[in-house]
Amino acid sequence: MKFLSYKLLVPALAILAGSTISGCKPGKAGSSVDADAAQKVYVAPGKYDEVYAFLSGGFSGQVAAYGIPSGRLLKVIPVFSQNAENGYGYSEETKPMLNTSHGFVPWDDSHHPELSKTNGEDDGRWLFINGNNTPRIARINLATFKTVEILELPNIGGNHASPFCTENTEYVVGNTRFSEPLDNSNGDVPINSYKKNFKGAVSFVKVDKDKGAMNLAFQLIVPPFNYDLAHAGKGPSHDWIFFTCYNTEQANTLLEVNASQRDKDFIMAVNWKKAEELIAAGKGTKITAKYAHNVYNENTHTATSVMETGTQTLDVTKFPGLVYYLPCPKSPHGVDVTPDGEYMAASGKLAAVIPVFSFKKMLAAIDKKQYDGMIDGVLPVLKYEDVLHGEVKKPGLGPLHTEFDGKGYAYTTMFVSSEVVKWKIDNLEIIDRIPSYYSPGHLSVVGGDSKKPFGKYLLSLNKITKDRYLPTGPELAQACQLIDITGNKMKLLLDFPTIGEPHYAQMIPAEKILKNQVKFFKLEENKNAYATKSEKDTKVVRNGNRVDVYMTAIRSHLAPDNIEGIKIGDEVYVHVTNLEQDWDVPHGFAIKGANNAELLIMPGETCTLKWTPGLVGIVPYYCTDFCSALHQEMQGYFRVSPAGSNVPVKFSIGENPVTQ
Amino acid sequence: MKFLSYKLLVPALAILAGSTISGCKPGKAGSSVDADAAQKVYVAPGKYDEVYAFLSGGFSGQVAAYGIPSGRLLKVIPVFSQNAENGYGYSEETKPMLNTSHGFVPWDDSHHPELSKTNGEDDGRWLFINGNNTPRIARINLATFKTVEILELPNIGGNHASPFCTENTEYVVGNTRFSEPLDNSNGDVPINSYKKNFKGAVSFVKVDKDKGAMNLAFQLIVPPFNYDLAHAGKGPSHDWIFFTCYNTEQANTLLEVNASQRDKDFIMAVNWKKAEELIAAGKGTKITAKYAHNVYNENTHTATSVMETGTQTLDVTKFPGLVYYLPCPKSPHGVDVTPDGEYMAASGKLAAVIPVFSFKKMLAAIDKKQYDGMIDGVLPVLKYEDVLHGEVKKPGLGPLHTEFDGKGYAYTTMFVSSEVVKWKIDNLEIIDRIPSYYSPGHLSVVGGDSKKPFGKYLLSLNKITKDRYLPTGPELAQACQLIDITGNKMKLLLDFPTIGEPHYAQMIPAEKILKNQVKFFKLEENKNAYATKSEKDTKVVRNGNRVDVYMTAIRSHLAPDNIEGIKIGDEVYVHVTNLEQDWDVPHGFAIKGANNAELLIMPGETCTLKWTPGLVGIVPYYCTDFCSALHQEMQGYFRVSPAGSNVPVKFSIGENPVTQ
Repeated sequence: MKFLSYKLLVPALAILAGSTISGCKPGKAGSSVDADAAQKVYVAPGKYDEVYAFLSGGFSGQVAAYGIPSGRLLKVIPVFSQNAENGYGYSEETKPMLNTSHGFVPWDDSHHPELSKTNGEDDGRWLFINGNNTPRIARINLATFKTVEILELPNIGGNHASPFCTENTEYVVGNTRFSEPLDNSNGDVPINSYKKNFKGAVSFVKVDKDKGAMNLAFQLIVPPFNYDLAHAGKGPSHDWIFFTCYNTEQANTLLEVNASQRDKDFIMAVNWKKAEELIAAGKGTKITAKYAHNVYNENTHTATSVMETGTQTLDVTKFPGLVYYLPCPKSPHGVDVTPDGEYMAASGKLAAVIPVFSFKKMLAAIDKKQYDGMIDGVLPVLKYEDVLHGEVKKPGLGPLHTEFDGKGYAYTTMFVSSEVVKWKIDNLEIIDRIPSYYSPGHLSVVGGDSKKPFGKYLLSLNKITKDRYLPTGPELAQACQLIDITGNKMKLLLDFPTIGEPHYAQMIPAEKILKNQVKFFKLEENKNAYATKSEKDTKVVRNGNRVDVYMTAIRSHLAPDNIEGIKIGDEVYVHVTNLEQDWDVPHGFAIKGANNAELLIMPGETCTLKWTPGLVGIVPYYCTDFCSALHQEMQGYFRVSPAGSNVPVKFSIGENPVTQ
Repeated sequence: MKFLSYKLLVPALAILAGSTISGCKPGKAGSSVDADAAQKVYVAPGKYDEVYAFLSGGFSGQVAAYGIPSGRLLKVIPVFSQNAENGYGYSEETKPMLNTSHGFVPWDDSHHPELSKTNGEDDGRWLFINGNNTPRIARINLATFKTVEILELPNIGGNHASPFCTENTEYVVGNTRFSEPLDNSNGDVPINSYKKNFKGAVSFVKVDKDKGAMNLAFQLIVPPFNYDLAHAGKGPSHDWIFFTCYNTEQANTLLEVNASQRDKDFIMAVNWKKAEELIAAGKGTKITAKYAHNVYNENTHTATSVMETGTQTLDVTKFPGLVYYLPCPKSPHGVDVTPDGEYMAASGKLAAVIPVFSFKKMLAAIDKKQYDGMIDGVLPVLKYEDVLHGEVKKPGLGPLHTEFDGKGYAYTTMFVSSEVVKWKIDNLEIIDRIPSYYSPGHLSVVGGDSKKPFGKYLLSLNKITKDRYLPTGPELAQACQLIDITGNKMKLLLDFPTIGEPHYAQMIPAEKILKNQVKFFKLEENKNAYATKSEKDTKVVRNGNRVDVYMTAIRSHLAPDNIEGIKIGDEVYVHVTNLEQDWDVPHGFAIKGANNAELLIMPGETCTLKWTPGLVGIVPYYCTDFCSALHQEMQGYFRVSPAGSNVPVKFSIGENPVTQ
């Protein structure tokens, strides 16, 4: 697509997008729906789904786990946003998870779930997810479905090209969508000095191969393009990782127009092995930006947040051979590497073809040293013809993302023409196309970015919903479609709405996750400093204006109850330990009028609610999770007296009053 | 069930509960599953579900709308809890919705969705929902699926028996689960003075019949029992409303034991018409407790919160004929009125029968004036035999709640024996029973508490999940089951997991909601004080350390961009107006590192994010809702300078720089 003027371009795109979605009425399932779809997606009561799908929540900041093929929402895993339902980001134990160099940030925009990999295959151990807004990478433990680590990334804005991992999860990466001055907090520069002062930074986060612990190993300082997506090589391309970049114009105002000027932008190929060697050889330069590193310990059930300072960096303009640029039409979005590691399919969202690059040819072109110019005078741009395997012709409008089925086929979403297109990797021929309702962004095949895709199911993750479900006022759920890819022709099976924006998803056969499931936490392993492991040890301890309540919960009472001696001006910390030792017996805890959420406490766990009583009077508390026939009776009272009152600390355990 | 000692009772209940759920393996669908279930629940892509189900989120504090029969989650409607996904409780416009007399409370425990009724039938206009923890009633506008009003209830703790409505939604009610001293903030009394100082209060909230606006009309002061559920009469019993009460022992410690002493507790029958007349005649006494009243205006798109003081009360002991007590075995949970208004089925969760009371017999017994004693010396207890229609014998263990199909049948959940039991209202014979996985609390039939049930579908809302779905670590989704009740035998169709705890649900045929749907807000009707209706009017206005940014969003840019002249110490209010005027074109807005959530702005709406920049530097902002092919380009930058800097206010609209 040639450049159109601003006035022409915007309406043209609006028309393109609009044409696929206007005039639609509910009730048209379409001829591409599988006749046996009902049977294929039905999971009978009590049966398990075959596949876990992990969908990012997009602007919800969370991750949602769905069962496939049923499309049932199994769990929202809170990651970057407060979640009142289970107290995440409200309890004293979990608040530190949302610390950043900017202080407490209760929300983020989570885009790309990434399953950890061993030998290029999904291993079912951890799920990584990026925070796009306040740049972070989180790690979820798939044995417990808890967010156990969040690492902030300094020197960047918009951590979009993240958290893609290398073949053995040696690293997960993050790259800049919104370039900033390096160590931004030191700078106060005009925005129109963008080309001079702003930089991109590619973060390489080392992942401990046994524990999963993340550490920011180093950053590469790169030109201030907008880096969008990434995928690492595998097999022959193991040492490399590929990033799409748009806004290679380096515009800093009205990007809609100014970042769509060039016919080709780039894929940036990074030799991460070489970068690792340079850092190991002491070639890095330290930049002193601050970033938070938050770790949730599943024995203490408590998060700690540490502020780190400084990271090793390599300015890629100073180290020849670290990065090469592959021209790619136009404003590329996705770059996806075939299971054998030989081809990289890129998708220029304003392009009319899908270019597929050859890794072998890339290496040959690098050896040949005949470039199509240099960026910043030193960063080689390879020749398009030299690195091209070929182009998928007439794929549709607005190609965005591609995944693979392991049988030689690729599947690409077309945002503007609203369809999924199946094509053959070797000869680049289009095999099939299926409409998608409406405007798909990412897609996901089970194991579809790995060395050994499982295939079978494809999710089309759509950006526009309109009439797909019963309406819910102006704000609609987002739309996801399940497509059967077992045959030559794709078959639509099911539409299901999703939580937040289903920006991207990864799917994995259930057996890989099932084998490691933790059903409850062992009480004997609870190392929380405020854990109370026996009802007889419950107590209320005053220290100045701090009051610690050591409480236990077991069917069907909270101990202690009838707590007196609390005063206005106190800070009350209620530490509730769930004494149950069985599967699925959570207890909840809430205090009337507390300026906080509830606690939801799993068996064997301790959680703490901080409460600053504001009014004199009697204040009930109770269990919020219906746990037994006598759940409704699981309650107690605080008595809050005026500041300076001499009401003594007094409470009951069982029916036994205790006065201190 | 006779009283068992504490040591006996607790293990006995644990065994009862445990026996139904031990040793279960996934993969057993059970013989009661409909052979055609897959076809019956399948809603083909693009087709609409037949029924909306509104499930309370329980401890999530929200309401979730599902499509039935598919079980698909259509939308989480934020009510009592902050919701980072769309900025509810974070944006300046919505923060006031969570104000209470205790200050800002970001969470509640929502239990009973209640559809507004006209002539005893669901009219599809509003949905009410109670906040249990910090006592409140909310109203959702079903034309927009937005929470438009939240009214706090003073003088009570635990607003559990709420928000049930009278036959024409004249009133919605709330009643005390945790009694407190009246005007609690004035009292500082020992908890063991419970019987003397604590009271229950029944709130009658008047609902404007055209606009839906709520106002606390009056409260009845009642004995300090724990009031659990309620249902209003209809037809012949129009003037009455019935409440279950447990803990009629008035225990205040270890209720598990001490509130389970009596063989019978009560149904409290309240003549609300008479109460209304007494209040109109000026017989009320004013109590000066404070409570918040929060209203969201859908033209200004802004909530306001007013603190009200004082309410009219009637002490029921002083007004004969207002309340009567019907003995009910044992610790009753639900009380449900048949569609014809003649029978009240109660469920004593520790009882071995389901007693069904006759309204006619109740009136006759009141006339007869032969009582089974008096509560507090003046409140008549009617004789069990006098008011009983009959008992459903051997229904199972732990009956909780009943709904009706309009064909003469009733359906009751059995918590302990984990089943749903169908029985005939006239002869009280059991027709059928179906296992429920596991431990159902409430159930819901389409229109099942109304004068004209639609029937067809029943939801069993289960309290225990265990192995019903692919596991997700120790914290599992909650469990809901869809049962076909069109035939003589109930047939299980589908299991689907739910958001939060599906405490109770109401279902309504989709057509009743569809007819009033708002697809977007009209820009010309936007009365927000900070609305910007044209891009040319966007601006940045400094007033001392307050900076107001008047911003617009339209595909695919935010105006202004490149905003300079922000300084450390500023309070920045970004007012974003979405200029789109089409269905399903939201825009989002986020600022890197803001200690706040994003905004999600519907077409025609204005939302405001307050941001207090903490670090000098360049700060990107962008649209968080994937709105078009050029969504990724929809970005801008703030420049934050040190306090005292002389960088002038400067920004760009389109590509035109503006300096002030």
